[in-house]
Amino acid sequence: MSGSTFGSIFKVTVFGESHGEMIGMVIDGCPAGLEVDLAKIQAEMDRRRPGQSKITTQRKESDLVKIVSGIFEGKTTGTPIAGLIENEDQRSKDYSHIENSFRPSHADFTYNEKYGHRDHRGGGRSSARETAARVMAGSIAKQLLETYGITIHAYVSQVGPIQMPETKIDYHKIESNIIRCPDEVTAKKMIALIEEVKSQGDTVGGVISCIITGCPVGLGEPVFDKLHADLGKAMLSINAVKGFEYGSGFKGVESRGSLHNDVFVEKNGIVSTTTNHSGGIQGGISNGMEIEFRVAFKPVATLMKPQQSINKQGEEVTVEGKGRHDPCVVPRAVPIVEAMAAITLVDHLLRHRSSRMDVKK
Amino acid sequence: MSGSTFGSIFKVTVFGESHGEMIGMVIDGCPAGLEVDLAKIQAEMDRRRPGQSKITTQRKESDLVKIVSGIFEGKTTGTPIAGLIENEDQRSKDYSHIENSFRPSHADFTYNEKYGHRDHRGGGRSSARETAARVMAGSIAKQLLETYGITIHAYVSQVGPIQMPETKIDYHKIESNIIRCPDEVTAKKMIALIEEVKSQGDTVGGVISCIITGCPVGLGEPVFDKLHADLGKAMLSINAVKGFEYGSGFKGVESRGSLHNDVFVEKNGIVSTTTNHSGGIQGGISNGMEIEFRVAFKPVATLMKPQQSINKQGEEVTVEGKGRHDPCVVPRAVPIVEAMAAITLVDHLLRHRSSRMDVKK
Amino acid sequence: MSGSTFGSIFKVTVFGESHGEMIGMVIDGCPAGLEVDLAKIQAEMDRRRPGQSKITTQRKESDLVKIVSGIFEGKTTGTPIAGLIENEDQRSKDYSHIENSFRPSHADFTYNEKYGHRDHRGGGRSSARETAARVMAGSIAKQLLETYGITIHAYVSQVGPIQMPETKIDYHKIESNIIRCPDEVTAKKMIALIEEVKSQGDTVGGVISCIITGCPVGLGEPVFDKLHADLGKAMLSINAVKGFEYGSGFKGVESRGSLHNDVFVEKNGIVSTTTNHSGGIQGGISNGMEIEFRVAFKPVATLMKPQQSINKQGEEVTVEGKGRHDPCVVPRAVPIVEAMAAITLVDHLLRHRSSRMDVKK
Amino acid sequence: MSGSTFGSIFKVTVFGESHGEMIGMVIDGCPAGLEVDLAKIQAEMDRRRPGQSKITTQRKESDLVKIVSGIFEGKTTGTPIAGLIENEDQRSKDYSHIENSFRPSHADFTYNEKYGHRDHRGGGRSSARETAARVMAGSIAKQLLETYGITIHAYVSQVGPIQMPETKIDYHKIESNIIRCPDEVTAKKMIALIEEVKSQGDTVGGVISCIITGCPVGLGEPVFDKLHADLGKAMLSINAVKGFEYGSGFKGVESRGSLHNDVFVEKNGIVSTTTNHSGGIQGGISNGMEIEFRVAFKPVATLMKPQQSINKQGEEVTVEGKGRHDPCVVPRAVPIVEAMAAITLVDHLLRHRSSRMDVKK
Repeated sequence: MSGSTFGSIFKVTVFGESHGEMIGMVIDGCPAGLEVDLAKIQAEMDRRRPGQSKITTQRKESDLVKIVSGIFEGKTTGTPIAGLIENEDQRSKDYSHIENSFRPSHADFTYNEKYGHRDHRGGGRSSARETAARVMAGSIAKQLLETYGITIHAYVSQVGPIQMPETKIDYHKIESNIIRCPDEVTAKKMIALIEEVKSQGDTVGGVISCIITGCPVGLGEPVFDKLHADLGKAMLSINAVKGFEYGSGFKGVESRGSLHNDVFVEKNGIVSTTTNHSGGIQGGISNGMEIEFRVAFKPVATLMKPQQSINKQGEEVTVEGKGRHDPCVVPRAVPIVEAMAAITLVDHLLRHRSSRMDVKK
Repeated sequence: MSGSTFGSIFKVTVFGESHGEMIGMVIDGCPAGLEVDLAKIQAEMDRRRPGQSKITTQRKESDLVKIVSGIFEGKTTGTPIAGLIENEDQRSKDYSHIENSFRPSHADFTYNEKYGHRDHRGGGRSSARETAARVMAGSIAKQLLETYGITIHAYVSQVGPIQMPETKIDYHKIESNIIRCPDEVTAKKMIALIEEVKSQGDTVGGVISCIITGCPVGLGEPVFDKLHADLGKAMLSINAVKGFEYGSGFKGVESRGSLHNDVFVEKNGIVSTTTNHSGGIQGGISNGMEIEFRVAFKPVATLMKPQQSINKQGEEVTVEGKGRHDPCVVPRAVPIVEAMAAITLVDHLLRHRSSRMDVKK
Repeated sequence: MSGSTFGSIFKVTVFGESHGEMIGMVIDGCPAGLEVDLAKIQAEMDRRRPGQSKITTQRKESDLVKIVSGIFEGKTTGTPIAGLIENEDQRSKDYSHIENSFRPSHADFTYNEKYGHRDHRGGGRSSARETAARVMAGSIAKQLLETYGITIHAYVSQVGPIQMPETKIDYHKIESNIIRCPDEVTAKKMIALIEEVKSQGDTVGGVISCIITGCPVGLGEPVFDKLHADLGKAMLSINAVKGFEYGSGFKGVESRGSLHNDVFVEKNGIVSTTTNHSGGIQGGISNGMEIEFRVAFKPVATLMKPQQSINKQGEEVTVEGKGRHDPCVVPRAVPIVEAMAAITLVDHLLRHRSSRMDVKK
Repeated sequence: MSGSTFGSIFKVTVFGESHGEMIGMVIDGCPAGLEVDLAKIQAEMDRRRPGQSKITTQRKESDLVKIVSGIFEGKTTGTPIAGLIENEDQRSKDYSHIENSFRPSHADFTYNEKYGHRDHRGGGRSSARETAARVMAGSIAKQLLETYGITIHAYVSQVGPIQMPETKIDYHKIESNIIRCPDEVTAKKMIALIEEVKSQGDTVGGVISCIITGCPVGLGEPVFDKLHADLGKAMLSINAVKGFEYGSGFKGVESRGSLHNDVFVEKNGIVSTTTNHSGGIQGGISNGMEIEFRVAFKPVATLMKPQQSINKQGEEVTVEGKGRHDPCVVPRAVPIVEAMAAITLVDHLLRHRSSRMDVKK
């Protein structure tokens, strides 16, 4: 029972292998009447696109999106929206050396054992190439959220040991540098670190932070489908993610209830809290404050230097990355985090429509 | 669209309010022929039970489980297994003061806004009382896993700032103290801290670590239902959880690929890795190594001292816990973490049965 | 992967065996704020109750419903609604003779083969006793539909070869006789036939017709979840059902398009059709006309006379009904048909809330 | 919440409009290791293809299938299988006359009301063109069933009032005539009737019967997902279907239990029944006998002669089919019935794998 569909009302199904003919997605359950700007979809794709800067993989993909159904005269019709992206720059022979070998900390071994055989070219289905389909779906979800006044901003807050200082974020600065960190001083350090790591044929991890503003009170479904539980699953499903926390997260553990509790205040009929350790979610339901979470990405497993491993016969082999890979995944993962957050939020917005007899939009 | 069901084949549906007549669960999809030991279910309930020690809430609940369907002559029949627990020690009047007020960092406000009204008694549905139903279901899942040789051990690895040193865990020691930390020296410090915090009417957070042994290779469904994504969602759905990480987690961010990658080795036909930064999961699929994850719990929101807040009318009020509450949630949350891990694993075990034409058990 | 849950937003999960301790249901996804009249639930149960007349089984069950969660101060809270019914009049020893034998056209053989063992007492899970849980859930669904002005009327239109003439139905007469046929003359003939059949230890089949009035335009989800497809599945899932048709049904096959098409007309802004061969559903979506369908029930399999069969060892045996059984299932199936129709409609009402950006109630 | 996905383990998602760029499908959950013969897929498409004979629509579509993922080196990999078909012969201007009008007994009105606007070209999403995607998915399901020895044969058993006599079916003769009726004498009458109806610009309905052989005992999931309930839903979801019955169906109503019950016999360890009024399914679970069901199709709604209707403004208009349409849908619907039956069966085969602790293939 495969897991290629995400969401329960706004359902996104994705398909495609890294070196197959194309990858794509189908959204079933997008409400009718949403005006879709195809240029905005493409703009999101470009943020995720390989080859966008010196610190990303050099694979060249134009990632041109073709929407083949579900949109008529610029608006969604309520029927399934299918989108396709052709793979252009596959160099499958770069991968012939791993046809029978298992790259360390990759999915080669587990796919092989689970399914009995696998499309090894470029990592096949386990490649992060599939996240292009998520960004395509997410960009439509984002456009839907815009009509509600909800915006999502993700940014790189840590690379290796280099952390951004905790300050007020200027969202406009996120796209001002190739690492997508809104603090320029930190951004430079991060880029320098990645270049150093890259020059060594090595890789490094990072953290992406995400802030959602304008989310109405009431999203999230007790008890299992708490909003942060579904956001967490969405993030943990992205390649290379190792951890998720929201609000005070792991650090909150060390606090005391008397310090950690967020005090409610009311002004002009609007309820808010004086602090936001809750990260905008209480009891699994959004409380109207900014939703804040952080996602940890491990160092990319493919290295441009030799590593010891084994092949299908259990014999020792040496593998070395011959493809074109990212020395650090986080700059390109920023739009992926936003996409998955957007898909999750839209799904909960629609689910919330069934919460009350006196339905509210 | 509510979220009271977890799992896609082994489906657990839960119901019940803190001060309602009873809470319960239904498992639909448990394979027929599993021998169920009711005493083992009760033993798990007792680990979660309130009033079990001086550092937990003093609410008295015997939490006696009554299974009313799905088991015949000691074995599951393949039909839905329903289990019930009566609520005995509700003191709903302890909660009349919050009928119109919102306790800080509780779900009072968000439930009220989402649903328009709420059962406020004891927190109603948002109370952690519902986790008793999870433990009930989880204890049956655990018995199913036992037949596969899979065991799950959770324990308290941190309370406030007190962390357990990283050592080999002796699982037998987990239950040897009331905090459920296998390191006795650390356990004493943790208990002392909780007692101190409790004497102040305050609360403190903690971390639960979990290790799963004996998990076969192949569990987990690409791309959205990666094993760690579903484990993460399962954990994040537990009350008071703020973060989830597996394997190297947030710390792995600081590493380099060359250090972080786990090297495959083969011996007598068994493939393993020399390190386990992957936490037993690669590409979202179990690789046969121990599965390791950590779950962060915030300080309990209910304090035994006055806190500022507002009521439904937006007026400032002072609220103070009058019920019986835990100063720290982690000791009682250990069996809940195990239960949710067990339910998640069983579901993936059954999902895996459809992965190949040449099906394997 | 079991199938004890029906619906995708208004999700009904049922459990319980014929001779187990109790049967029950959980509704997850009922919107908050619905006022629930418990007396109406009980009234529906009484329509389905065994022992209600001379032409039904004499098993005595009071079928008292106990709602244990999800309703507070008379209104739904948006949390799961669980309801229980205790089994009172089990005479399990009546069934010891079939512990090892397979009754003809029953589920004894298939359950045994599918699951390896079974709770044979009273048919266990395969007994129509489980439909009591459906009626419980359906009666809450009906109350929700009432707030939309939607009513559901099912009635017996055929018993054996005796068919009700096609006339305008007076819904008030349905409950005026024990067969639940609104045509009194036909009702008498039907009752006489059932009494005759019963006196022979035999059984007979029947048809239940159902009319839904007040359904708004727009319910039903293309392409697989067409409204009539989900109604059809709902009906076919009821014990003893062999067929489903809506609108012109099987007879429509013989017509011509020019006669069969329903002509649209408009009056005062209301669109209707001059005929209703579509049965109120076009393209899988309700069109505002009355929804009409028919459900075929086979003769009950349990006979009060000897039948030839085999036992688990494959040896020939003779079986004879010793329990208390219905000579014809349709009178008691009327509220079951209505319940399943109500559950299906509520689910589609809630699903429809996500159809458009400019959501309508 | 849209309904474009069918199945719970073998999940088929379809998309595409009649006059859009392409239609397609994604299968998520096909087990790895199935050898797929692309020529067999195309052969099924050709059976459904428009323009195949004088009694079908003259729209010319080659319906060439392109599989773009999920199959590697001739075998399924366990990852999603996506297939595409380009629309070639759209003549959208044939439909400009219905942009603002509602064709009688079509989905024009209901789509318009449900979604607020619609792709009217060729009927858009409501066109039976979408069934091409079902046949694509179904042909892969069929190949999977073949490995289990399960075969599915549908055929036309009635057109208008012309019924095939009840005889032993020679499956080889189904494809020997353009109506797909295995009885040659009846086939000729049916074809003559359709030609006559067509010459009048009119249409006529029909019945498709279907027989599944080789189905193992045990498929079907109590209580809601009975095998015949899911088959019924599958069939009722096909365009123009008005009714479904299995085994004795509506006629069985008139029988008596003593005549209707199927007597079990055993020979060489194989259990069978002497009659098959159960249609191969008892208690919702396959019993090893042939599965038999019948599906009623209404006369096609589009006529080649003027019909009265209304437009969006509620004004009276006259509409007349200008596209190319089938005078009778059943010959082309035979492979669609088989496809939906195959998808349903594969899903239940895979679901059945989770039924028992001692799993059987």
